Amino acid sequence: MSLLEKFSRLGTDNAPGQELRQKTDGLQLRGDVLPGTPVDFSHGDVDAFTPTPGAFESFAEGVRKGGAQAYTEYRGAAAIRADLAEKLAQFTGAPVDATDGMILTPGTQGALFLAVAATVSRGDKVAIVQPDYFANRKLVEFFEGEILPVQLDYLGAQAEAGLDLNQLEDAFRQGARVLVFSNPNNPTGAVYSAAEIGQIAALAQSYGVTVIVDQLYSRLRYSGSDYTHLRAAGIGAENVITIMGPSKTESLSGYRLGVAFGAPKLIERMEKLQAIVSLRAAGYSQAVFSTWFSEPEGWMAERIRLHQAIRDDLLARFDAAGMPARVPQAGSYLFPRLPKLEVAPGEFVRILRQQAGVSVTPGTEFSPHTAHSVRLNFSQDHRAALHAVERMIELARRYGA
Amino acid sequence: MSLLEKFSRLGTDNAPGQELRQKTDGLQLRGDVLPGTPVDFSHGDVDAFTPTPGAFESFAEGVRKGGAQAYTEYRGAAAIRADLAEKLAQFTGAPVDATDGMILTPGTQGALFLAVAATVSRGDKVAIVQPDYFANRKLVEFFEGEILPVQLDYLGAQAEAGLDLNQLEDAFRQGARVLVFSNPNNPTGAVYSAAEIGQIAALAQSYGVTVIVDQLYSRLRYSGSDYTHLRAAGIGAENVITIMGPSKTESLSGYRLGVAFGAPKLIERMEKLQAIVSLRAAGYSQAVFSTWFSEPEGWMAERIRLHQAIRDDLLARFDAAGMPARVPQAGSYLFPRLPKLEVAPGEFVRILRQQAGVSVTPGTEFSPHTAHSVRLNFSQDHRAALHAVERMIELARRYGA
Repeated sequence: MSLLEKFSRLGTDNAPGQELRQKTDGLQLRGDVLPGTPVDFSHGDVDAFTPTPGAFESFAEGVRKGGAQAYTEYRGAAAIRADLAEKLAQFTGAPVDATDGMILTPGTQGALFLAVAATVSRGDKVAIVQPDYFANRKLVEFFEGEILPVQLDYLGAQAEAGLDLNQLEDAFRQGARVLVFSNPNNPTGAVYSAAEIGQIAALAQSYGVTVIVDQLYSRLRYSGSDYTHLRAAGIGAENVITIMGPSKTESLSGYRLGVAFGAPKLIERMEKLQAIVSLRAAGYSQAVFSTWFSEPEGWMAERIRLHQAIRDDLLARFDAAGMPARVPQAGSYLFPRLPKLEVAPGEFVRILRQQAGVSVTPGTEFSPHTAHSVRLNFSQDHRAALHAVERMIELARRYGA
Repeated sequence: MSLLEKFSRLGTDNAPGQELRQKTDGLQLRGDVLPGTPVDFSHGDVDAFTPTPGAFESFAEGVRKGGAQAYTEYRGAAAIRADLAEKLAQFTGAPVDATDGMILTPGTQGALFLAVAATVSRGDKVAIVQPDYFANRKLVEFFEGEILPVQLDYLGAQAEAGLDLNQLEDAFRQGARVLVFSNPNNPTGAVYSAAEIGQIAALAQSYGVTVIVDQLYSRLRYSGSDYTHLRAAGIGAENVITIMGPSKTESLSGYRLGVAFGAPKLIERMEKLQAIVSLRAAGYSQAVFSTWFSEPEGWMAERIRLHQAIRDDLLARFDAAGMPARVPQAGSYLFPRLPKLEVAPGEFVRILRQQAGVSVTPGTEFSPHTAHSVRLNFSQDHRAALHAVERMIELARRYGA
C-alpha cells in the first residue's frame, strides 16, 4: 500500500476534538439558530467532572523527585508498576506481573497502538467488532491487516452485549489471529455478559487467538450491572493484553496515562516499540498513577451516581423523541439512532454544531452500518447536556423526513 | 518481514535508561570496585541542571485552565502553536505556519516517529548518517525501508561536521527518497557547517528528497560555533521537516514535549497518525511550551557556560588518556574512542557499570563502525562527572591490551 493510500484511509476529519478544523460553509440551515450553552459531546468535560483529588499534588511530588521520576525505564517506573500491579490484580481477579507483564503508556491510545503493532502485520486477519472504537479499525488498517468484522446486536436483549458468537468463530476459523474489542463497548455502553466473555475466552483459547481488550471504562459501572474481566475468565495468560487507564472516568485525560498488562512476550515487544515511538509516558505524569484505585472513600460511587442521573435523563428524552439507544451499563457514552432525516447524517452533525452549538461524533466512525447513529459522551454538566439534547431533538424535527 | 523478525531487530537492551533490565552475571572483574558517586551518562541529570524557571508554574496554570487545556486538537492547542511559530521562525530564520505547518508531540521522539512514518514505507530507500541517533535507523527498519548509509568523518577537520557529500549524492542517485539526520550530530556533537548544510539543501532540492532534521540540541551551542538552519538554507519548504523540543537543554524531559514544523502535507499525515498513536502531547504539559524561548535573561548563556566547562574538563582527561573525541560544538554528548582492550567493548560497558558505577551508551547503537566508542551525556554534576571519567580511564587501563 502506498503512503498516500495509507494516510488517506486514516481520516480524522470527524474524529472527536478535530471539529475545529472542519469547514462549515455550504450548509442550508432551516430556521433560527438555537441558543444555549455549547456542549461538546465528542469527549467528556473535565470542568464538569474534575480530576481525582490529589492528582495534581502527586504530579507536583513527581517534579520534586526530579531525575528519578523524569527518566524511567521505557515501560515506566518500577515502583509505580509494582503498586499498580497489586491494584489491577485485585480489580481484575487475576495476577499481574509488575516486572515483565506491564507497561505504562501515553494514554490508553498509546497502549492500544503498541498492542496492535505488536500483534498485527501485513496480511494478518484481525476480528473487529462493529460498532466499536474507531481506532481499532484504523490501527489494523495502518498495519495493513485484514479486518474480519463481527456484529454486535446492541439494541437486542440487554442481558447480553449482543456479540454474534457464530460470526466470531467463523472469523477465527477463517484464520483471524487477533481480536480487538472494548468492554464496555465504545460507543454503545454495552457490557459483555459473563457467558459472552466466557465464550470469547474459550474460542480464543481453542483457536490460539490473541485478544486485546480495551477496558478503559470498566470502573464506571451503573447499578445492577455485572462485569467479567476476560483475563480472569479462563483465557491463557499468554493470549491476552488488557488495556486500562486513569483517564475519562477519573478526568485525568490531561495527564495522558494508560497501562497495558498481560502476556510478557507481547509487553516486551510493546516496550521495544515505545522506545522509538515516544520513549515513555511522561515521567512526571507517571506519578499520578498513585491516586488511581486509591480515590477518597465514596468518591467513585458519587461520580457513578451523578453520571447515572445524566444517563437516565438523556435516555428519557431520546426515548420520547423516537431515537432508540442502548441503555449503557457502564461508561459515559450514549449511541442513539437518528430519525429519518431529509439531510444526510453527516450533514446533520455539521448543522447541529453550527445551529445549536452541539458537537457529536458521527456513527460512521464506529461501523459502516451505523451511519444513522451518533455518539455522545455524557460526562458533562447535567443541565447543559440536557438542554443540548433538547436542541438536538428540535433540529431532528426540523430536518425530519 | 515477520513480526518476530521485526521486533528482534528493535533491540533496546543497550538503549539509554534500560540498563536496569540488563543481566550483569558472568563478568570477570579485575581488581577492586572503584568507589564514587554513580553517574548515569546515558542521559542528562535533571537534578544537576534543573528545569527552566517557571515550567512547573506553567503546567499548574494549564491544569487550572481545565478542559480547554486537557483536550486540544491532536496537533496541539492553537494558541500555543501560534506563539511557538513566531519564536521558531525567529530562531530558525524562515517562516513557520502555525495553522498547517506545525504539530506538538510527546517528546521529540514522538515527532521523529511520526515524521519517519509519514515519509517511509516498505522498500523505500532512506539515507542515514553514520554515526547518528540510533532511533533513526530503528525507525526506518521498523517501517521496512532500506538504509543507505552516509559516513560522517567526525574526527577529521573540525571546521566541518565531516559528511561525505559524494556518498550522500550517490545515495540520492540510487533513489533515496528521504534523508534523516541530527544537527548537532548525536552522538558526536558535530555541527554541520554552512557549506555542508547548503549542499545538503541543494542536493535534496535537485533530487526531490525529503529531509527530516532533528535539531534537538541546536540551542546549546558553545562559544565560537556557528549554526545554519537547513530550513533557511534554500531547500523547498515542502521538502523539509524540522524537529526540536524543550527537552534536554532545558531539562524539561519529564514533561515529554516536542514539536515538528515544516511541509503542511507531511504535518497533516503526522497528525492523522498521532490520532491513533497517542492522540496528542499531554494537554497540561503543552502549557509548558510558554516558557520555551522565553527563559529569564542570561539563563541560557549561563547554562551553556557551565556545560562548556564540563566539556573542556572531560575532553582534557580523555585526551591525556589517549581516547580521542570530537570537540562537541553543541549539545551535551561526548563520543570518545576507547583504547585497545582485552575485553569486547560491550563487555567493558557492563564492567564499567558494575565496577565503577558509570553508565555509558555503547557505540554500536550509533553505527556499525563505532563499536570502539562510547557516548556520554555530560549534562551532569561537574565534580561527579569528572570523577566518573577518571574511574572510566582507570578501568580502561586495567583492561587495556
